Amino acid sequence: MPKTTPPEADSRRLQMADIARLAGVSTSTVSRALAGSKLISEETRTRVMELARSLKYNINIGAQNLRMKQNRTVGVVVPYDPATRQHLSDPFFLAMLGSLADALTEQGFDMLVSRVDASELDAAAAPFDTGRVIGIVLIGQWRHHDQLNQLAARHVPIVVWGAQLPQQLYCTVGGDNLAGGQLAGAHLLAQGRQRIAFFGDINLPEIGQRYAGLCQALAAAGLAADPALLVPASFVPDGGRLAAEELLGRGVAFDAVFAGSDLMAMSAINAFRQHGLDVPGRVAVVGYDDIPLSSYFHPPLTTVQQPIQEAGRALVASLLELTEGRPAPSLQLPTQLIVRASTV
Amino acid sequence: MPKTTPPEADSRRLQMADIARLAGVSTSTVSRALAGSKLISEETRTRVMELARSLKYNINIGAQNLRMKQNRTVGVVVPYDPATRQHLSDPFFLAMLGSLADALTEQGFDMLVSRVDASELDAAAAPFDTGRVIGIVLIGQWRHHDQLNQLAARHVPIVVWGAQLPQQLYCTVGGDNLAGGQLAGAHLLAQGRQRIAFFGDINLPEIGQRYAGLCQALAAAGLAADPALLVPASFVPDGGRLAAEELLGRGVAFDAVFAGSDLMAMSAINAFRQHGLDVPGRVAVVGYDDIPLSSYFHPPLTTVQQPIQEAGRALVASLLELTEGRPAPSLQLPTQLIVRASTV
Repeated sequence: MPKTTPPEADSRRLQMADIARLAGVSTSTVSRALAGSKLISEETRTRVMELARSLKYNINIGAQNLRMKQNRTVGVVVPYDPATRQHLSDPFFLAMLGSLADALTEQGFDMLVSRVDASELDAAAAPFDTGRVIGIVLIGQWRHHDQLNQLAARHVPIVVWGAQLPQQLYCTVGGDNLAGGQLAGAHLLAQGRQRIAFFGDINLPEIGQRYAGLCQALAAAGLAADPALLVPASFVPDGGRLAAEELLGRGVAFDAVFAGSDLMAMSAINAFRQHGLDVPGRVAVVGYDDIPLSSYFHPPLTTVQQPIQEAGRALVASLLELTEGRPAPSLQLPTQLIVRASTV
Repeated sequence: MPKTTPPEADSRRLQMADIARLAGVSTSTVSRALAGSKLISEETRTRVMELARSLKYNINIGAQNLRMKQNRTVGVVVPYDPATRQHLSDPFFLAMLGSLADALTEQGFDMLVSRVDASELDAAAAPFDTGRVIGIVLIGQWRHHDQLNQLAARHVPIVVWGAQLPQQLYCTVGGDNLAGGQLAGAHLLAQGRQRIAFFGDINLPEIGQRYAGLCQALAAAGLAADPALLVPASFVPDGGRLAAEELLGRGVAFDAVFAGSDLMAMSAINAFRQHGLDVPGRVAVVGYDDIPLSSYFHPPLTTVQQPIQEAGRALVASLLELTEGRPAPSLQLPTQLIVRASTV
């Protein structure tokens, strides 16, 4: 960083002239007063000393404002559900944090991570409102569409990882969830599977779009989605197992599962295995995300890949546009199907 | 946060008295000047306006100092190697970031993440030196012992995840790596394995202690460690595969591998499988860390568990002791062996 402070002597001269002007006295009076000269009245000396202190503050403030302009910190907010206070252990979220840290490091920025109560999402803007960050990346759109719109409406520079929704004021960057769902569905249909169960909470925008993609693939093959094959599942570590057991308990026919995340798919596969159902022989399973370990899983997991490294860069690039006062249109990153042994 | 700003009216009255005293005029003159009255000379009006601005700054500075005292941000620094600029994708590092974020959220703190060039580690203290954080947690002790000592010597509150070393001035929190290595070695010996290869860079303090633990277990069984079974391996994603191929290329007899991390173990198992070597039949493999997915791996991985959630809490607790000016002795968290199908 180049030195921007003027040399000490200049700064002192400027300060004396300022004090003189403000006190309504000459600079030589100021000089004498600061030196404690008895030639100056007690009253004037006190005034000049107070002003000197006051102006010293001003000089510091200037440096502080300069630092603010040079603020190179971006806030990353991950809301938590106050009911569960779930730990930050989801591999996809963690990979996204890592990707953001990498993208910000590349641009010379630090990352201020805060978790806020999802029911009081306005608090997400606090690091911006207090001048600690130049803008915010929010990971976890969940059901917060209205609150996020409010933040955007009051011009908080914010970019959200998630799905594009109708009447959206804020900028999103996300994978193409509809296309991802179509890819997964078309792949399973091409493998001869027709009774495809879906695991996930379709009230979450991204998950809802993945399910809609599956339904479109089914419709294109002349099939209707069977509501009995839609199983609510959450992102908690054993969400996939619970959904698998729920599905088995329903006693409906199924030959494939499309799970809302890789972790859910892995947890479901382990549950199917415990119930003696072979994967992919009896049940083909597709995950979502392509977290690093999906290729190490047994069987290696067929999944829809989200481009995590690009995601971090795209989120940061859009946020920097916003902070420069330029528009940042919402962005969908392409997704691709990675075929591995869990379906073929 | 309780309101600390005095009511607006009081603040305004104080300000007018201050301006009057500093300008050497009466408060009614100040009042008129601020109202833009023509009864006041241009010169006096300008002086009063400037002083008003100046004092407003002072009030802001006070609020700012208050905010600094209430600074509730902790810095988390993850050094990177400038040669490789490796992405932040290691599951153990990411899990540790998540654990720290959780522990800090519990205590009402935000987390400022910065990555610094490992060869200029003094930069790790910048967020503290500039007053943005109250202290620093550093993840990635690597070979930075001397630089970390220098930071501690100049009283930067810093806690490092890693191994305790001789002549250490800084505070470390880490797993008991020596005991972890002993546990892994004793378990493999109890399974009848005697030719145990070690994968990892023993110049890194933690890895060196894990290897020393293995050697102690061998010695306790009357066996010497064979240097031909020590294979350097790094934490890059395919480090385990490269080490497995190096070991196979050496043509030495081996019946087990103790790998420096779970990821290394998983990557090695995949390589052994590709070479037609059954795990655990032909080669038993033990990992280290117990990352969430080691239980999902096939075969599920025997590993030495590092208590990640406790680690985050312990790092934060030690750092808060330091920032309060109290001593924080280095701490070793107990490790335990988790036996799964990769060894039995």
